Amino acid sequence: MGNCGEAMDFKILHKDKNCRARTGKFNTLHGEICTPIFMPVATQGTVKALAPVWLDEARVEALLSNAYHLYLRPGLDIISKAGGLHKFMNWPGPIITDSGGYQVFSLALLRKITDEGVNFQSHINGDSHFIGPKECLRIQEAIGSDICMVLDECVAYPCPYEKAKLAVERTLNWAKTARALKLSKGRQIFAIVQGSTFQELRKSCAQELVKLDFDGYAVGGVSVGEPTQLIYDIVSFTLNFLPQDKPRYVMGMGTPQDIIENIGQGADMFDCIIPTRYGRTGTAFTCEGKINLRNSIYANDFNPVDSECGCYGCRNFSRAYLRHLFYANEILGLELLSLHNVYFYTDLIAKIRQAIENDCFLQFKSAFLERYKA
Amino acid sequence: MGNCGEAMDFKILHKDKNCRARTGKFNTLHGEICTPIFMPVATQGTVKALAPVWLDEARVEALLSNAYHLYLRPGLDIISKAGGLHKFMNWPGPIITDSGGYQVFSLALLRKITDEGVNFQSHINGDSHFIGPKECLRIQEAIGSDICMVLDECVAYPCPYEKAKLAVERTLNWAKTARALKLSKGRQIFAIVQGSTFQELRKSCAQELVKLDFDGYAVGGVSVGEPTQLIYDIVSFTLNFLPQDKPRYVMGMGTPQDIIENIGQGADMFDCIIPTRYGRTGTAFTCEGKINLRNSIYANDFNPVDSECGCYGCRNFSRAYLRHLFYANEILGLELLSLHNVYFYTDLIAKIRQAIENDCFLQFKSAFLERYKA
Repeated sequence: MGNCGEAMDFKILHKDKNCRARTGKFNTLHGEICTPIFMPVATQGTVKALAPVWLDEARVEALLSNAYHLYLRPGLDIISKAGGLHKFMNWPGPIITDSGGYQVFSLALLRKITDEGVNFQSHINGDSHFIGPKECLRIQEAIGSDICMVLDECVAYPCPYEKAKLAVERTLNWAKTARALKLSKGRQIFAIVQGSTFQELRKSCAQELVKLDFDGYAVGGVSVGEPTQLIYDIVSFTLNFLPQDKPRYVMGMGTPQDIIENIGQGADMFDCIIPTRYGRTGTAFTCEGKINLRNSIYANDFNPVDSECGCYGCRNFSRAYLRHLFYANEILGLELLSLHNVYFYTDLIAKIRQAIENDCFLQFKSAFLERYKA
Repeated sequence: MGNCGEAMDFKILHKDKNCRARTGKFNTLHGEICTPIFMPVATQGTVKALAPVWLDEARVEALLSNAYHLYLRPGLDIISKAGGLHKFMNWPGPIITDSGGYQVFSLALLRKITDEGVNFQSHINGDSHFIGPKECLRIQEAIGSDICMVLDECVAYPCPYEKAKLAVERTLNWAKTARALKLSKGRQIFAIVQGSTFQELRKSCAQELVKLDFDGYAVGGVSVGEPTQLIYDIVSFTLNFLPQDKPRYVMGMGTPQDIIENIGQGADMFDCIIPTRYGRTGTAFTCEGKINLRNSIYANDFNPVDSECGCYGCRNFSRAYLRHLFYANEILGLELLSLHNVYFYTDLIAKIRQAIENDCFLQFKSAFLERYKA
C-alpha cells in the first residue's frame, strides 16, 4: 500500500465558525498543498496554452494531469526516460493524476468493463489496451504523480439504479485491490466516491472507501449532465460521509459559483477545464461575472479584462486588444485569456482562504454572488 | 514631408575591412535601432503566439507590422483611440509598418491599380477601399509607426519587362507624392525599390528614389518565387545604388543563410515570417540547421532543441517534450518553438554584429554555413 495514514499529515488550519468551510494543508513529494485549492488541468502534460512561467504568474500551486492521456501519448517509456512528468513538463510543484476512469468512459472506443478492469481501444489510434486497478496505479507511479487516483467506474447521467450500483461495486473492489498495492514512499492515493445521484449508493460507497483508509477522498461522477442543484445536493450529501481529517476533493468542478458552494460544504480541492477552455473561446471571468470578449461592446473598451485583476494580461492589455486578437485568430488571445482566467480562479481561492480564516466565508460568498452575474 | 534627412542620423559604427558588412545605429521615436537587425513580423498587432514579455526574452529590438492588415482590422479608429499601436499591443520599442503594397497584391480581392493608387476589396469582408500614396502614409501615421514605408507596386515573379517597368513608374510617382507630405515630427519614411529581376529597372528605381532623399531605402519585391541565387544577385546589385549613409532594408528576407548573405552585401535590416511560421509547424532552427521536431528520431531525445541556445524553451524543455506537444496539438508547442526560433534569429544577428566589429564577418559566415545544414 501507499503512504495512506502515514505522511499524509493533513492539518486543518482553520474552520469557519459559521459553516463547514475550512482551510488546511498537507505535504506531497513536490511540496505543500494548501486548501482550499483550485488545480488547473494539464491533461496532456501542459496546461493548455500556458508555459510554467505563466502558471507561476497565476500563482498556481498544483496541477491535475491525466493517466489515460499520458499513458497513450507520449507513453510511459518516454515519461520515465525523461525522469517523470515533473521534469518532462518542467513543473516542480505537486501533480495529481486522474486515474483515467472518466476518460475511458468518455473517450475510449469499444470499451468493455469487467470486474478485473477495462478493455478499451485508444481514441488516438485504435490500439487495444487493458487497465485494471493495479495497472492504473502503476501508470500513475511511472508518471511520477504525487497523488494517484484509484481507478473508478464513472457512469453517465441519468443512470439506472442497478447500473450505478454495479459501478459502485466495481469501484469499491478496485479500490480494495489498489489499497493492497505498495507504492514508492511518499506517493499518496485518493479514492473516488461514485454512486450517481443515488444517496444510498453515495453513502455506502463513501463509507466503504473510508474503511480502507486512503490518503484522501474524491467525489467523482458529478457534473456529468445533472442540474446544478442536484450536483450541489449530491456533493454536499456525500461530503458528510468523508472524514474531517482528510482532504476532500470534488472532481471536475467547476464554475466560480460551484467552487464557492462546495467549499461552503467542506470541500477542499477542485480541478476544472473551465478557465482554460473558456479562455480559448473568448470568455473571460471578471469580478462582475463572465463576459465574452467577442461581443461588439468591447470593440472600443480600453479597460483591462477585469479592472480588479493583477494578471499580466490585465496589467498590459485592453478588452479591445483582446477582442481584436480573437477576431484576428491570433494565438496570443488564447494565451492571455487562459492566463487571466486561471489567475481569476487562484485569486478567488486566495480570497476565500482569507475569508475562512476570518470566519466570514458566508459574507464573502454573499457579496461575491451578489456582484457576480453568470 | 517627414523628417527625411533631419533626425534620421544613421551612423555607421563599423565597416568590416574585408566585405561590405557594417554595423550602425539610428534613432526612432521609440528608441534606437542598431543594425544589422532582424525584426519579427507582427502583422496583425502581435508577433504570432508571442506576448511582449517573450519578445523581451528573445531580445527583440523592433517589429514590423502591417498597414493593410491593421487598417482593415481592427481599423484606425480603434488603434487611434487606444493611443496608437505601441500602446494597443503594449510594445514600447520601434515599429516599422509595411505599406501594405505587398498585401494588396497578394491578399486583396478585385484590386484595380491606377496611377492614383489601388482600389481593392477587403479579404476579410469584401468591403471596397482605396489607398493611394497619401492615404497609405496617413494610415501609418494613425497607427503610430516609427518608420513608414511608401506605397509601392509589387509584381509577381516571373514578370514581363513592360509590366515591371510600369510598376516601377507608379512606385516612383507614389514615392514623389509621399515625399511631399508632412508627417508629424520624428516619424521616418523609407522608400521601396521595385523592378522585379531587371537590373536596369532596379538601378533606375533606386537612383530616382535616392534623389528624393528618404530616411532609408528598402529592396522590395524579392523573395516572391525567384531562385535563391537570382534573389541574391538582384539584392546585391540593387544595394550598389543605395547610399552608404542610410539604412538599407531587404524586405521579407529570409532564411538564416539569406540574412547572412545579404548582410555581407551591405544590407542592414530584415524582417521575415519564417521564424514564427516555421515555429508553428514544428520546424526549429539550430546551430546545425533546421530540424523538424515531428520526426520520430526526437521522440526519445531529451536534449534541448538547440544545445547552444539560451532561450526559455531550451533552458527548460526537451525535444521529446516539444515533439509531444506538437503531436498532442498543444498550443504551448507553438509558443515555445516560435520563441526559440525568434531567439535563434536575434542571437544570430548578435553574433554577426560581433563578427563585423571584429572584421571577421567572412570567417563567421564560412564557419556558420559549414555547420548549418539547411
